[in-house]
Amino acid sequence: MKKRLSEEKVFKDPVHNYVYVQDQTIWDLINTKEFQRLRRIRQLGTSYLTFHGAEHSRFSHSLGVYEITRKIISQFERHGYPDWPKSERLVSLCAALLHDVGHGPFSHSLEQVFDTHHEQWTCKIILENTEVNRVLRGVSEDFPEKVASVIRRTYTKPIVVSLISSQLDADRMDYLLRDAYYTGVHYGTFDLERILRVLRPHQGSIVVKESGMHAVEHYLMSRYQMYWQIYFHPVTRSSEIILRQIFRRARELYETGYSFQYMPKPLQALLEGTIDVPSYLKLDESLVQTAFGEWAEEDDDLLRDLCDRFLNRRLYKYITLDNPDEKLLNEIEEQWRMIGLHPDYHMEIDFPYDQPYDVYRPDTKKGEKEEKTPILLLDEQDHLNEISRKSDIVRSITGLHQGQYHLYYPEEPLLRAAGRLPAGIRELFKLDARQAERF
Amino acid sequence: MKKRLSEEKVFKDPVHNYVYVQDQTIWDLINTKEFQRLRRIRQLGTSYLTFHGAEHSRFSHSLGVYEITRKIISQFERHGYPDWPKSERLVSLCAALLHDVGHGPFSHSLEQVFDTHHEQWTCKIILENTEVNRVLRGVSEDFPEKVASVIRRTYTKPIVVSLISSQLDADRMDYLLRDAYYTGVHYGTFDLERILRVLRPHQGSIVVKESGMHAVEHYLMSRYQMYWQIYFHPVTRSSEIILRQIFRRARELYETGYSFQYMPKPLQALLEGTIDVPSYLKLDESLVQTAFGEWAEEDDDLLRDLCDRFLNRRLYKYITLDNPDEKLLNEIEEQWRMIGLHPDYHMEIDFPYDQPYDVYRPDTKKGEKEEKTPILLLDEQDHLNEISRKSDIVRSITGLHQGQYHLYYPEEPLLRAAGRLPAGIRELFKLDARQAERF
Amino acid sequence: MKKRLSEEKVFKDPVHNYVYVQDQTIWDLINTKEFQRLRRIRQLGTSYLTFHGAEHSRFSHSLGVYEITRKIISQFERHGYPDWPKSERLVSLCAALLHDVGHGPFSHSLEQVFDTHHEQWTCKIILENTEVNRVLRGVSEDFPEKVASVIRRTYTKPIVVSLISSQLDADRMDYLLRDAYYTGVHYGTFDLERILRVLRPHQGSIVVKESGMHAVEHYLMSRYQMYWQIYFHPVTRSSEIILRQIFRRARELYETGYSFQYMPKPLQALLEGTIDVPSYLKLDESLVQTAFGEWAEEDDDLLRDLCDRFLNRRLYKYITLDNPDEKLLNEIEEQWRMIGLHPDYHMEIDFPYDQPYDVYRPDTKKGEKEEKTPILLLDEQDHLNEISRKSDIVRSITGLHQGQYHLYYPEEPLLRAAGRLPAGIRELFKLDARQAERF
Amino acid sequence: MKKRLSEEKVFKDPVHNYVYVQDQTIWDLINTKEFQRLRRIRQLGTSYLTFHGAEHSRFSHSLGVYEITRKIISQFERHGYPDWPKSERLVSLCAALLHDVGHGPFSHSLEQVFDTHHEQWTCKIILENTEVNRVLRGVSEDFPEKVASVIRRTYTKPIVVSLISSQLDADRMDYLLRDAYYTGVHYGTFDLERILRVLRPHQGSIVVKESGMHAVEHYLMSRYQMYWQIYFHPVTRSSEIILRQIFRRARELYETGYSFQYMPKPLQALLEGTIDVPSYLKLDESLVQTAFGEWAEEDDDLLRDLCDRFLNRRLYKYITLDNPDEKLLNEIEEQWRMIGLHPDYHMEIDFPYDQPYDVYRPDTKKGEKEEKTPILLLDEQDHLNEISRKSDIVRSITGLHQGQYHLYYPEEPLLRAAGRLPAGIRELFKLDARQAERF
Repeated sequence: MKKRLSEEKVFKDPVHNYVYVQDQTIWDLINTKEFQRLRRIRQLGTSYLTFHGAEHSRFSHSLGVYEITRKIISQFERHGYPDWPKSERLVSLCAALLHDVGHGPFSHSLEQVFDTHHEQWTCKIILENTEVNRVLRGVSEDFPEKVASVIRRTYTKPIVVSLISSQLDADRMDYLLRDAYYTGVHYGTFDLERILRVLRPHQGSIVVKESGMHAVEHYLMSRYQMYWQIYFHPVTRSSEIILRQIFRRARELYETGYSFQYMPKPLQALLEGTIDVPSYLKLDESLVQTAFGEWAEEDDDLLRDLCDRFLNRRLYKYITLDNPDEKLLNEIEEQWRMIGLHPDYHMEIDFPYDQPYDVYRPDTKKGEKEEKTPILLLDEQDHLNEISRKSDIVRSITGLHQGQYHLYYPEEPLLRAAGRLPAGIRELFKLDARQAERF
Repeated sequence: MKKRLSEEKVFKDPVHNYVYVQDQTIWDLINTKEFQRLRRIRQLGTSYLTFHGAEHSRFSHSLGVYEITRKIISQFERHGYPDWPKSERLVSLCAALLHDVGHGPFSHSLEQVFDTHHEQWTCKIILENTEVNRVLRGVSEDFPEKVASVIRRTYTKPIVVSLISSQLDADRMDYLLRDAYYTGVHYGTFDLERILRVLRPHQGSIVVKESGMHAVEHYLMSRYQMYWQIYFHPVTRSSEIILRQIFRRARELYETGYSFQYMPKPLQALLEGTIDVPSYLKLDESLVQTAFGEWAEEDDDLLRDLCDRFLNRRLYKYITLDNPDEKLLNEIEEQWRMIGLHPDYHMEIDFPYDQPYDVYRPDTKKGEKEEKTPILLLDEQDHLNEISRKSDIVRSITGLHQGQYHLYYPEEPLLRAAGRLPAGIRELFKLDARQAERF
Repeated sequence: MKKRLSEEKVFKDPVHNYVYVQDQTIWDLINTKEFQRLRRIRQLGTSYLTFHGAEHSRFSHSLGVYEITRKIISQFERHGYPDWPKSERLVSLCAALLHDVGHGPFSHSLEQVFDTHHEQWTCKIILENTEVNRVLRGVSEDFPEKVASVIRRTYTKPIVVSLISSQLDADRMDYLLRDAYYTGVHYGTFDLERILRVLRPHQGSIVVKESGMHAVEHYLMSRYQMYWQIYFHPVTRSSEIILRQIFRRARELYETGYSFQYMPKPLQALLEGTIDVPSYLKLDESLVQTAFGEWAEEDDDLLRDLCDRFLNRRLYKYITLDNPDEKLLNEIEEQWRMIGLHPDYHMEIDFPYDQPYDVYRPDTKKGEKEEKTPILLLDEQDHLNEISRKSDIVRSITGLHQGQYHLYYPEEPLLRAAGRLPAGIRELFKLDARQAERF
Repeated sequence: MKKRLSEEKVFKDPVHNYVYVQDQTIWDLINTKEFQRLRRIRQLGTSYLTFHGAEHSRFSHSLGVYEITRKIISQFERHGYPDWPKSERLVSLCAALLHDVGHGPFSHSLEQVFDTHHEQWTCKIILENTEVNRVLRGVSEDFPEKVASVIRRTYTKPIVVSLISSQLDADRMDYLLRDAYYTGVHYGTFDLERILRVLRPHQGSIVVKESGMHAVEHYLMSRYQMYWQIYFHPVTRSSEIILRQIFRRARELYETGYSFQYMPKPLQALLEGTIDVPSYLKLDESLVQTAFGEWAEEDDDLLRDLCDRFLNRRLYKYITLDNPDEKLLNEIEEQWRMIGLHPDYHMEIDFPYDQPYDVYRPDTKKGEKEEKTPILLLDEQDHLNEISRKSDIVRSITGLHQGQYHLYYPEEPLLRAAGRLPAGIRELFKLDARQAERF
């Protein structure tokens, strides 16, 4: 049953000014405990350790994605575009609101270590015995499955999928604007109102009126800057490395029968690989941070040190490597062992390009991680052109990536052992200069 | 030992654009674990349950207060005003940075229930065996005591105290701007740059050049609006009431020997009244929320219900009472008991005016909670005038307060028992209308 | 004939982001030469001499008033409020767009000297033989008269009048936001989106849902600040005084048969009192400034000096008088004559309160200059309350005015003649101090 | 004689918040009539006909360039960088303030038709008998020549020249921010504060600390967008074409002895090629617009029509040509003549790339119009690298230009004569479609 609210509800939002709720179903979804849990999960994971303002939660972002989707659809309806299937409004809004409901704490790191996927959890939360599921079933018995299939990108109406998941979707548009607002940088600002105005439903997908090309160029350039200035910031990468190592070390210890003084059940289930929806929902950042706080007093030196580093922001430093060849890495490993460091934990090569990311790549193949549909321009003769064929600037930045190899490591033990290290290593890690600075 | 950093460090900040650090001591203080802990304590307590954007931490605010103080002092130094004691720069900056370091999680509620005071904890953290103390002692042995006495407002140079704590101090200026930014409201915006420009050190206090009167008027009006729109918002009050009741119930249970399935040591020490600095520092919002998560499965019905309400934002509703006379309250209490509710937990009268707050009150007496010095204008003849004597608008809003009595209560049990309640109560709580709406 | 545009047109606007045009009539009105002429008339008259950013024109403001009106009406239509007469949309939009089309250059000064009224000119432009009239007659023969009667506030549907002209009308809302944006001050910013959301058509007028009271309070406080910080700024008053004196002097010379070397026909018609619509439309700021440029080389000393002062911003200085009693003024006049100054031109008492202005006055009587309807709040029981009865802060600032008497005068001749003036005058005008400063 | 003001003066500015004046010389220059005249010349020429908000003057921009220069220098002084020659402060500030003082009304068009150059006029105003010259001579006899040589880029200290005129100079930084603010677009916003922080004086030029590379990338991308979205907007180009044609027609008429009913002396001197500084200074936009207003009633059909078009914004339309080959243009010319249009005035090919512009070109040769120095990055080893060698995104957009040929023409006569034009022309100009739309 679909029901309009007798009176529109509003949320004050710093990015969109207001978020408007007009449907009882949306209102009820927001009030489920699974959705409220998103308040306890930060949108940008550990980025707040680099940009202190970035403390916003996935709750705020999810409302934002919902609001952008609502605006797009309401514009489609107002103009009565025939290619927009009107009956898809509610399923689109629900999918927009819920698309991140399966995120765990510090998802990127957690998913890498435990090989879970937030989209799968989103679907489980939508489909299993939850408050979210109950609200969705209130619309119709098959409604949860419909919403889940939008998340899985298999919904029968691809236009609905592309609202939430494409090169120019509500998700990206909200997070660029929101992350720019909360970090305080200027890069992420583009003209949302104009982009919304030039979107057109067109034969099962959403395309851009050609006159809006420049606004899309600006959006892509904002994206480029946000990736390199914010999302791939080396300090954030360092904190994610430490997070992953905490999870890896805990698992290693757990698997070898180590007896933890504190091990909350949801984490235990995660380590055991037996975690189910109710336990997963208890896994929020509070629980993880509390565990880290306790583990910072565990017997295991490595775990203790890593937790202390994370909580008190004593992150690994990094050096830039032009070419991390095996010989060099082998030598570093050897020296590490010599001075009592664990190569598995105390050095990590990172290359941001190993990410499902590209500033813009029109020709992504099916099966690749990033199966996002390209951006198509609709000209006055109703022909479609992929944007990089029309825009010089998009063409020139397509496929551009500028990643560098970084090697992350703990600085203090190196400085203490500097005297025992060969000159080449000392120079590579600039140990002499840094010691001079400190003492 | 005071040492300038060889290269200025900067933090990107959404409110001040950048925060500049020039002193080794400030840099080291920011990197202490006691200061980093402020990242795990939200600036506005439970306000994020009303304004979802308000998820910023005391870490961000503390940097902001530091930055405003730094700007004021650097302006004083640049102009060489003789009434500014130059040697007080570092102690002022340290006090500005650390003034909130003793805040616990959801301070207002916690302090009311457990009768602790964050300023006392701030002083303890500065004076006892902490990383903060070690950094401060690096300046000189008596430096921690100096900083602590600024916090206590007993420092020998009152001008330093007034930077951090007066009607127009760096603390208030930062939080008004910051809370406005993060909630997304327009009210809190005033012209910080102009106010900073018209501040003058004058015989031991900081006064305002008369030509800047209008900027100060605007600041006071912003403050008025922020208090009534944000800080005293009834939904926020409701969540604070629930928080207090959780703490009260936990203490009650603890005192009567109830056996908690989960009771982290810092909370136990708090309940026992034996909490010391190391335990207090572990008390962050993560720990409290984790405890609430566990307590939401305790045997005690009240505690379980309250924790569930807090975590899942199922707050108490409220009605407005013109005059909460005893007879009425007695009747409500009686009816509450009749339908199985606990008057101690299921009804609470709230009146925001019972707060150490006033839009502006020039004549606060010594000993009152709010001992903030009034705002003085310096005219061209070097005479001082209290601002409300010169400004019509300040005079007209001085002492203004517009609080109303609200009665907070859980709605669901009332709706369920509505049939058994007398008509007067049903009408007062609009039960019939609300039932109609729901079913 | 009413016709929708096949495709919405947009104007990029710094205040509203975009202005949307959906009707052929509106589009055609914007393209008339009478409306385009507003580009050559600044919105804030001479304020740009005080706030250099305030160089925006009445063209921009008129589009803004139109856009706010469009937003209000579209919200009324979207919700289907029964008290909004749907057929009044176009007449409202036209009146909003055209309400200032009769403004002349530097209207306030011009109107005072020549006793013309821009509203009368607006009506003439709407009703006489103009492009505007032709476009309006395209809708229907009586349409121009309808639009004119909205301007005159005599239209049969008072709700249409109140959109354009009330205490909370589209005109004021746009100019406060716009003037704040262009001057660069923070005062004028209020939450337009929220105010628009709480407006309700109600029995022939527009009222405010009580839950929006705080947004209106904020709007009224913004207004208060804008009036005193921007509109009544003494430097702007000084430039207006000089403008009025130029016009007065030109008229005086003209009446006494002085032969101007340059006298464009529209100005001549104005001086003669025979100006008609075609001539009035040629009277823009370019023409007036060009005339002043030529008159700066006329034979008449006074006119030449005044024009030079205006163009090169050599304004009169002012002193503040607590009580401008006749005796004092007589003495000043006498001294002025003694040193060769003209009291009629070289001194002017100004009191900003002599303006059709009040921060908010609910009880304006019919016939008073400011017959704006008060702001009414609509509570949940559908009762109306005038806002100052509900809002403490509005009540406390109602009727507040803080004007001071200023005496404006040219400083240079006074400084030159200082030695011949009595000590009292020297002190009143601080001549000794200023001389010391200059030499 | 250099003299600090006893009290800093401030201007409220929407872009920089405040502009600070600390030197008597700067204060006096601002108050000269030559500088005040810049209030009557719009910064963006005719762009206000496309972006109605862009009504700001060269006065505002000049203050902004001054303020950015002041901030750069004050940062250099604060850090005591040895490569900054301290004694060059005042000459730099004066040159920054005055760099545009020689601009005439609608400079770009005027300069093209009359082959004048604003930089030459700037130098004349600085060096000849003006108030500006008098103020500058107050510093020292050779000071005007020093300032003029900075404008001419021949000053002995190239670092001073590069402050005002390089790829990253105070001029460009101000106009990008300011034009973005007044048009209301988001493109032009970059992080000025960060760029200022990473500028370093280095061996006679100003370079950028490598860590600031990303801020410069953002600035260059902003510039790219501003050029294509704002400065080269086809509607603005159209209005410039009309302007140029007015000037050309007036000259043609003047040269053939046509007797103008209105011809102000400064315009006459311009047409005769005998214009001197005093006349040039009278040439402001008021005078030009007044002349156009009068000429809109001249006997000459062409002049009358062009002036009407400009004042009432009846601009030429345009079509895009992939390849404007001679054959096509000859045919259009022929047809134009056939239906009574003047090919010299009623068609004009425009290609924005014919401009002294490039998004960024590091290798400009001496003698080229755009002799701006490239942007150099200073790495930690004190080596300099041209930015496009380090930045992928800068390299990929270097040399990028995307201009298209546009043919501008008056639409109305074409529509009227459509029936007599061959089908090819009708289609090229879409006459049938446009007629259908209109009637």
